[in-house]
Amino acid sequence: MVQLLSDAEITERLNQLSGWHREGNKIQCTRELKDFPEAVNFVNKLVEPAESAGHHPDLEISYNQVTINLTSHGVGGLTENDFNMAKTISEIS
Amino acid sequence: MVQLLSDAEITERLNQLSGWHREGNKIQCTRELKDFPEAVNFVNKLVEPAESAGHHPDLEISYNQVTINLTSHGVGGLTENDFNMAKTISEIS
Repeated sequence: MVQLLSDAEITERLNQLSGWHREGNKIQCTRELKDFPEAVNFVNKLVEPAESAGHHPDLEISYNQVTINLTSHGVGGLTENDFNMAKTISEIS
Repeated sequence: MVQLLSDAEITERLNQLSGWHREGNKIQCTRELKDFPEAVNFVNKLVEPAESAGHHPDLEISYNQVTINLTSHGVGGLTENDFNMAKTISEIS
Protein backbone atom coordinates (compact mmCIF):
# COMPACT_ATOMS: atom_id res chain seq x y z
CA MET A 1 0.00 0.00 0.00
CA VAL A 2 1.27 3.43 -0.94
CA GLN A 3 2.28 5.57 2.03
CA LEU A 4 0.87 8.87 3.22
CA LEU A 5 3.22 11.77 2.58
CA SER A 6 4.40 14.04 5.38
CA ASP A 7 3.58 17.76 5.35
CA ALA A 8 7.15 18.50 4.28
CA GLU A 9 6.95 15.99 1.43
CA ILE A 10 3.62 17.46 0.30
CA THR A 11 5.01 21.01 0.30
CA GLU A 12 8.08 19.87 -1.64
CA ARG A 13 5.92 18.19 -4.31
CA LEU A 14 3.47 21.12 -4.53
CA ASN A 15 6.41 23.42 -5.21
CA GLN A 16 7.17 21.36 -8.31
CA LEU A 17 3.63 21.77 -9.67
CA SER A 18 2.03 24.86 -11.14
CA GLY A 19 -1.59 25.75 -10.40
CA TRP A 20 -2.17 23.27 -7.58
CA HIS A 21 -2.72 24.04 -3.92
CA ARG A 22 -3.48 22.01 -0.85
CA GLU A 23 -6.96 21.82 0.67
CA GLY A 24 -6.58 19.70 3.81
CA ASN A 25 -6.28 16.09 2.69
CA LYS A 26 -6.56 17.00 -0.98
CA ILE A 27 -4.70 18.88 -3.66
CA GLN A 28 -6.79 21.05 -5.94
CA CYS A 29 -6.45 22.73 -9.31
CA THR A 30 -8.99 24.72 -11.33
CA ARG A 31 -8.83 24.80 -15.10
CA GLU A 32 -10.65 27.46 -17.06
CA LEU A 33 -11.87 26.44 -20.50
CA LYS A 34 -13.69 28.36 -23.23
CA ASP A 35 -17.20 27.15 -22.44
CA PHE A 36 -19.22 24.20 -21.13
CA PRO A 37 -18.57 21.84 -24.08
CA GLU A 38 -14.82 22.52 -23.81
CA ALA A 39 -14.94 21.88 -20.05
CA VAL A 40 -16.58 18.49 -20.64
CA ASN A 41 -14.10 17.82 -23.43
CA PHE A 42 -11.26 18.40 -20.97
CA VAL A 43 -12.87 15.98 -18.50
CA ASN A 44 -12.99 13.36 -21.27
CA LYS A 45 -9.22 13.58 -21.53
CA LEU A 46 -8.86 12.58 -17.88
CA VAL A 47 -10.61 9.23 -18.31
CA GLU A 48 -7.79 7.26 -19.91
CA PRO A 49 -5.02 8.37 -17.51
CA ALA A 50 -7.30 7.90 -14.47
CA GLU A 51 -8.29 4.41 -15.58
CA SER A 52 -4.69 3.47 -16.42
CA ALA A 53 -3.49 4.57 -13.00
CA GLY A 54 -6.54 3.22 -11.19
CA HIS A 55 -6.64 6.61 -9.51
CA HIS A 56 -9.63 8.89 -10.11
CA PRO A 57 -9.84 12.62 -9.54
CA ASP A 58 -12.99 14.12 -8.02
CA LEU A 59 -14.26 16.73 -10.47
CA GLU A 60 -16.52 19.74 -10.38
CA ILE A 61 -17.75 21.34 -13.58
CA SER A 62 -19.27 24.79 -13.39
CA TYR A 63 -19.90 26.11 -16.90
CA ASN A 64 -16.35 26.66 -18.24
CA GLN A 65 -14.46 25.78 -15.05
CA VAL A 66 -13.27 22.35 -14.01
CA THR A 67 -12.04 21.93 -10.45
CA ILE A 68 -9.93 18.82 -9.90
CA ASN A 69 -9.45 17.34 -6.44
CA LEU A 70 -7.03 14.54 -5.76
CA THR A 71 -6.69 12.47 -2.61
CA SER A 72 -5.99 8.84 -1.82
CA HIS A 73 -9.36 7.83 -0.37
CA GLY A 74 -8.08 4.37 0.61
CA VAL A 75 -5.47 5.73 3.00
CA GLY A 76 -7.23 8.94 3.96
CA GLY A 77 -4.73 11.47 2.70
CA LEU A 78 -2.15 12.44 0.13
CA THR A 79 0.26 9.96 -1.43
CA GLU A 80 2.70 9.82 -4.32
CA ASN A 81 -0.24 8.60 -6.47
CA ASP A 82 -1.92 11.98 -6.13
CA PHE A 83 1.13 13.90 -7.23
CA ASN A 84 1.77 11.53 -10.13
CA MET A 85 -1.80 12.08 -11.31
CA ALA A 86 -1.56 15.85 -10.76
CA LYS A 87 1.55 15.92 -12.94
CA THR A 88 -0.23 13.89 -15.65
CA ILE A 89 -3.27 16.17 -15.55
CA SER A 90 -1.10 19.29 -15.70
CA GLU A 91 0.36 18.03 -18.98
CA ILE A 92 -3.12 17.74 -20.59
CA SER A 93 -4.05 20.80 -22.63
CA MET B 1 -36.43 37.47 -17.78
CA VAL B 2 -37.74 34.24 -16.32
CA GLN B 3 -39.30 34.60 -12.88
CA LEU B 4 -38.26 33.06 -9.58
CA LEU B 5 -40.66 30.36 -8.43
CA SER B 6 -42.36 30.52 -5.05
CA ASP B 7 -41.76 27.81 -2.43
CA ALA B 8 -45.18 26.34 -3.24
CA GLU B 9 -44.42 26.26 -6.96
CA ILE B 10 -41.04 24.62 -6.29
CA THR B 11 -42.61 21.93 -4.11
CA GLU B 12 -45.28 21.26 -6.72
CA ARG B 13 -42.66 20.83 -9.47
CA LEU B 14 -40.40 18.67 -7.29
CA ASN B 15 -43.32 16.33 -6.66
CA GLN B 16 -43.50 15.73 -10.39
CA LEU B 17 -39.83 14.72 -10.59
CA SER B 18 -38.21 11.54 -9.33
CA GLY B 19 -34.81 11.61 -7.64
CA TRP B 20 -34.51 15.36 -7.23
CA HIS B 21 -34.54 17.30 -3.98
CA ARG B 22 -34.12 20.90 -3.03
CA GLU B 23 -30.90 22.27 -1.52
CA GLY B 24 -31.59 25.92 -0.74
CA ASN B 25 -31.53 27.81 -4.04
CA LYS B 26 -30.77 24.67 -6.04
CA ILE B 27 -32.32 21.38 -6.98
CA GLN B 28 -30.04 18.37 -6.84
CA CYS B 29 -30.00 14.83 -8.19
CA THR B 30 -27.30 12.15 -7.94
CA ARG B 31 -26.91 9.54 -10.65
CA GLU B 32 -24.97 6.37 -9.99
CA LEU B 33 -23.24 4.83 -12.99
CA LYS B 34 -21.12 1.70 -13.39
CA ASP B 35 -17.72 3.31 -13.13
CA PHE B 36 -15.75 6.48 -13.87
CA PRO B 37 -15.82 6.19 -17.69
CA GLU B 38 -19.60 5.67 -17.59
CA ALA B 39 -20.00 8.67 -15.27
CA VAL B 40 -18.07 10.85 -17.74
CA ASN B 41 -20.06 9.35 -20.59
CA PHE B 42 -23.27 10.41 -18.87
CA VAL B 43 -21.91 13.95 -18.46
CA ASN B 44 -21.26 14.08 -22.21
CA LYS B 45 -24.94 13.46 -22.81
CA LEU B 46 -25.78 16.65 -20.90
CA VAL B 47 -23.79 18.93 -23.22
CA GLU B 48 -26.24 19.12 -26.11
CA PRO B 49 -29.38 19.78 -24.03
CA ALA B 50 -27.54 22.30 -21.83
CA GLU B 51 -26.21 24.17 -24.84
CA SER B 52 -29.59 24.08 -26.61
CA ALA B 53 -31.34 25.52 -23.57
CA GLY B 54 -28.52 27.92 -22.72
CA HIS B 55 -28.84 26.56 -19.19
CA HIS B 56 -25.95 24.64 -17.67
CA PRO B 57 -26.03 22.30 -14.70
CA ASP B 58 -23.23 22.40 -12.13
CA LEU B 59 -21.77 18.90 -11.96
CA GLU B 60 -19.71 16.88 -9.52
CA ILE B 61 -18.13 13.60 -10.58
CA SER B 62 -16.84 11.28 -7.88
CA TYR B 63 -15.80 7.97 -9.44
CA ASN B 64 -19.15 6.46 -10.55
CA GLN B 65 -21.42 9.16 -9.11
CA VAL B 66 -22.56 12.32 -10.85
CA THR B 67 -24.26 14.98 -8.75
CA ILE B 68 -26.24 17.50 -10.75
CA ASN B 69 -27.13 20.90 -9.33
CA LEU B 70 -29.47 23.28 -11.09
CA THR B 71 -30.14 26.89 -10.27
CA SER B 72 -30.75 30.07 -12.23
CA HIS B 73 -27.57 31.98 -11.37
CA GLY B 74 -28.79 35.10 -13.19
CA VAL B 75 -31.79 35.59 -10.95
CA GLY B 76 -30.38 33.98 -7.80
CA GLY B 77 -32.81 31.13 -7.37
CA LEU B 78 -35.03 28.51 -8.96
CA THR B 79 -37.04 29.15 -12.10
CA GLU B 80 -39.00 27.16 -14.65
CA ASN B 81 -35.74 26.77 -16.60
CA ASP B 82 -34.30 24.61 -13.82
CA PHE B 83 -37.28 22.29 -13.78
CA ASN B 84 -37.35 22.04 -17.56
CA MET B 85 -33.66 21.04 -17.52
CA ALA B 86 -34.21 18.62 -14.60
CA LYS B 87 -36.96 16.91 -16.61
CA THR B 88 -34.70 16.69 -19.66
CA ILE B 89 -31.83 15.26 -17.59
CA SER B 90 -34.15 12.73 -15.94
CA GLU B 91 -35.01 11.36 -19.37
CA ILE B 92 -31.33 10.70 -20.20
CA SER B 93 -30.28 7.12 -19.50
